Amino acid sequence: MKLTDMDKGGILALKNQWDEEYKSFKAMNLKLNMARGKPSPEQLDVSMDMLNILDEKSVLDGINGDDYRNYGILDGIPEAKRIFSDMLGVSEDEIIIGGNASLNLMYDIIADSYAFGVNGSKPWCKLDKVKFLCPVPGYDRHFAICEKFGIEMVNVPTDENGPDMDMVEKLVAEDDSIKGIWCVPQYSNPTGYVYSDETVKRFANLSPKAEDFRIFWDNAYCIHHLVDNPRIILNILDECKKNGKENMVYIFGSTSKITFSGSGVSAVGSGKDNIAYIKKNMGIRTIGYDKINQLRHALYFRSYDGLVEHMKKHKAIIAPKFKVVLDTLEKEIAPLGIGSWTKPEGGYFVSFDSLPGCAKRIVELCKEAGVTLTGAGAAFPYGKDPEDKNIRIAPTYPTVDELQKAMEIFCLSVKIASAELYLK
Amino acid sequence: MKLTDMDKGGILALKNQWDEEYKSFKAMNLKLNMARGKPSPEQLDVSMDMLNILDEKSVLDGINGDDYRNYGILDGIPEAKRIFSDMLGVSEDEIIIGGNASLNLMYDIIADSYAFGVNGSKPWCKLDKVKFLCPVPGYDRHFAICEKFGIEMVNVPTDENGPDMDMVEKLVAEDDSIKGIWCVPQYSNPTGYVYSDETVKRFANLSPKAEDFRIFWDNAYCIHHLVDNPRIILNILDECKKNGKENMVYIFGSTSKITFSGSGVSAVGSGKDNIAYIKKNMGIRTIGYDKINQLRHALYFRSYDGLVEHMKKHKAIIAPKFKVVLDTLEKEIAPLGIGSWTKPEGGYFVSFDSLPGCAKRIVELCKEAGVTLTGAGAAFPYGKDPEDKNIRIAPTYPTVDELQKAMEIFCLSVKIASAELYLK
Repeated sequence: MKLTDMDKGGILALKNQWDEEYKSFKAMNLKLNMARGKPSPEQLDVSMDMLNILDEKSVLDGINGDDYRNYGILDGIPEAKRIFSDMLGVSEDEIIIGGNASLNLMYDIIADSYAFGVNGSKPWCKLDKVKFLCPVPGYDRHFAICEKFGIEMVNVPTDENGPDMDMVEKLVAEDDSIKGIWCVPQYSNPTGYVYSDETVKRFANLSPKAEDFRIFWDNAYCIHHLVDNPRIILNILDECKKNGKENMVYIFGSTSKITFSGSGVSAVGSGKDNIAYIKKNMGIRTIGYDKINQLRHALYFRSYDGLVEHMKKHKAIIAPKFKVVLDTLEKEIAPLGIGSWTKPEGGYFVSFDSLPGCAKRIVELCKEAGVTLTGAGAAFPYGKDPEDKNIRIAPTYPTVDELQKAMEIFCLSVKIASAELYLK
Repeated sequence: MKLTDMDKGGILALKNQWDEEYKSFKAMNLKLNMARGKPSPEQLDVSMDMLNILDEKSVLDGINGDDYRNYGILDGIPEAKRIFSDMLGVSEDEIIIGGNASLNLMYDIIADSYAFGVNGSKPWCKLDKVKFLCPVPGYDRHFAICEKFGIEMVNVPTDENGPDMDMVEKLVAEDDSIKGIWCVPQYSNPTGYVYSDETVKRFANLSPKAEDFRIFWDNAYCIHHLVDNPRIILNILDECKKNGKENMVYIFGSTSKITFSGSGVSAVGSGKDNIAYIKKNMGIRTIGYDKINQLRHALYFRSYDGLVEHMKKHKAIIAPKFKVVLDTLEKEIAPLGIGSWTKPEGGYFVSFDSLPGCAKRIVELCKEAGVTLTGAGAAFPYGKDPEDKNIRIAPTYPTVDELQKAMEIFCLSVKIASAELYLK
């Protein structure tokens, strides 16, 4: 029976019962964490053979005879470019291999745009106002970069096909202070939505008023599937090329959730003008990134196929965890009608929407019972969820048993917060 | 006999002879490179045992029980902090371990100062003018960062005790647009000068008009000695603390010329306020740097003493190369009185001064005979050597035999260019 269909007396009776259950959970002094999209130790174990994979020959004598231990090769070794260009869907002269974090590549591109402009445009720091479109809910670290640079963020609603493209098209065509949009097109963070072909085509055909408008296409989860026959998004660079707009998009990826989270390699793909511009700036910033670690990855995976095959091992570990989350929500929350959630086929998160006004309270209740969640509102610019209803659930890190326990506490917290709302 | 003491006929006769020698070198079609401060393959071989040093236990279970394969620990693992804080002469809570390039740390600090200010000061991008003092000759990559951000560079002469401190003290006290100074205090790039104790004390006691003035203390060669009993500079942070000015200096170092040039670790040390501010900015820029590579370094060196011991192997390889450079200059150039040069006790370079107006021509002559040198003027802001006389010689990369040949061609080029000057 739905909570909405009950009278206050019935709700109160249930709430008393939930409070009792909650108390007994609290007494367990649990410490469970579903806060961040961290791989579990078991997932990290999958790549252990990569750690000591290097032999003297391969380090000394790269594909073009280069000694990868020394300085040089600013934009990445060919062995790595070959694999990661296939992953990003670009060619080997449309890619730069970065350091251990694609976030750093995104940040640097925005920092460069701020200080020096985009390929000849006026530096953003010299403009009165710079805005970014932010499909919501989205990734908190993207939004933190914008906030840091004083870039005004404009929320764009999303559904299972991606962002509201009518709104995106209209805004970028009208407002030349809009310089960018954040996209996680395959398994969006946190919804798990996969952009439809139409959405990708409409992105590739945007006609922004600002010549320095760019799409930040963070394809962080492009091969992070949870199902056997995953949908794959259209290749944005190919689509852009059809419209002569290949310099409108930057495509990002990394192995942070493929090999080791702090010690992976990152990459950015784009049109050739953008790549040349990024490289020029990079040459002042650094002597280049860690080529030996790039080589470790190249030797370990050998090809893009090797990378895809490797991800099946991750799927085997984390798909059961997503099942725990979804099964528990289905069992505990669905009958009461006090929440809705996404059912992702990949990525790292489940996005849960409570009744409006309950998210903060749920996170608080969970915390008191020993379950750490991402802060309520984290998936929105400035940390402000206008309806205070969205919570990002990250199932990968805990064990299945821990997760089962954590989800029981989560569902109980949803119930109590919802009851509190109705009894107000 | 000095060239200046000869008559034109005598010089012409010598020049004809030198031209003949030059022709025969040219016919050899040599390809020798003394352009950049790159370690030789032999030096890189020294650290090969580090590549596969990791065992499962150490990666999974850091000193505080952390799994170094996962996200987290923004500012570096304790095992690395312990070693590199000793190297920089700071404490473990006054250091951040960075990625593979200290250049990147310097760049990021300047980029942050430009966009956000220094610890609460007005962002440099909002100021009409920002200037840096640049002791010359100096490091081209430092100057390139300033040029990139439109920071006006002011040359400061140096001698064997370091920069002209009268000038530095006067300028920073008078002009609040001066926001920084580049220093390579131990074995300056390219002179090899070691700052005297008085110089360090005067730096630590500067009274800059700009509250956001900072000393960029790039101690890149602090343990890169070429002699058995090296002079060691005073600890700048300790000296600054005596004056309550510990946030006036950033100290940089890296293992780029200790382990692998592209795959080392970098570090920055400073007063606690600066460290906190850098960390705050870093947390937006990245998820942290490669902890596994930090661990490789920590396991390999074990302690600062291990690091110092390790550098003796480098000394054994490169000290004979510096000897070739200095012996050849002494033999070929000294008697003619057509140049002067530094005699470094460490670092990576010899700084050569030709007769004024000859440096570009010497580099050109070398190039035509197959010897690549750093471009003339590279050691000056904007690449402009006011007297066109300075050339940076980098002896480490070639073999001893190659270097001998390269130095013969270099000396011959100096002779020809000098003769051309006198015969003009």
